Amino acid sequence: MNVGTEWLVDAEGCSPELICRLETLRGLCDEVVRDLDLRVVGEPMWHQFPQPGGVTGLYLLTESHLACHTFPERGIATFNLYCCRPRPAFDWDERLRLLLCATRVSVRVAARASEEWNEQLSSAPEYSALPSIREVSSR
Amino acid sequence: MNVGTEWLVDAEGCSPELICRLETLRGLCDEVVRDLDLRVVGEPMWHQFPQPGGVTGLYLLTESHLACHTFPERGIATFNLYCCRPRPAFDWDERLRLLLCATRVSVRVAARASEEWNEQLSSAPEYSALPSIREVSSR
Repeated sequence: MNVGTEWLVDAEGCSPELICRLETLRGLCDEVVRDLDLRVVGEPMWHQFPQPGGVTGLYLLTESHLACHTFPERGIATFNLYCCRPRPAFDWDERLRLLLCATRVSVRVAARASEEWNEQLSSAPEYSALPSIREVSSR
Repeated sequence: MNVGTEWLVDAEGCSPELICRLETLRGLCDEVVRDLDLRVVGEPMWHQFPQPGGVTGLYLLTESHLACHTFPERGIATFNLYCCRPRPAFDWDERLRLLLCATRVSVRVAARASEEWNEQLSSAPEYSALPSIREVSSR
């Protein structure tokens, strides 16, 4: 009983200057929304923290949510896109390298409440660690 | 270069009636915030969709974010808690069984931008599928 797909995207080696720019990040998230034809509910929340100036953005979507967090002190930007409606993959790799000067982009995909679980009969709570890198493939 | 931990929590077999109650879900999320001593920035966003009445909640946190989505037509509630500050684990299993009558709770843990990635030298984009269940353990 799947209720959607979540993409966990982590970009490293980003330009600290670029990932402090709220307008750049907003433009990127708006591009994701537009390209994947997502529907935003209400106003997205954006917040810039004090020095070093990390930024957080949250979009409530009809399809679930989009989140962005940046850590300029580490050159890292992370994104979550949770869609309960089938959507094509966004080209995170190309866009984050171009817009944020990322040198490494990792995209992990998680099925939420996926069917496999129904095959498990145990009523015990189930815990699992998500590996950082598995089934690595290049395009 | 880790920038935090994310918990992906999926609860199945929930009472459709309970996971339509915005106040119940808000109370649960507020409990998570209080128990883990998280700091909310601005006002949390809550939205109830038309029939069957699924609910979405988003909290922008100093520590990153907390998200809640419910699917009453499937008896499923999902949560994301992303913390860039070390925090103890919340007892999702006990609370979701008690408050939402969940019959199955899965908790997956993802390190964001974790150190293992730095050991990989390839500049190719890295994709991975997050398995639904791995390293299952009961308490």
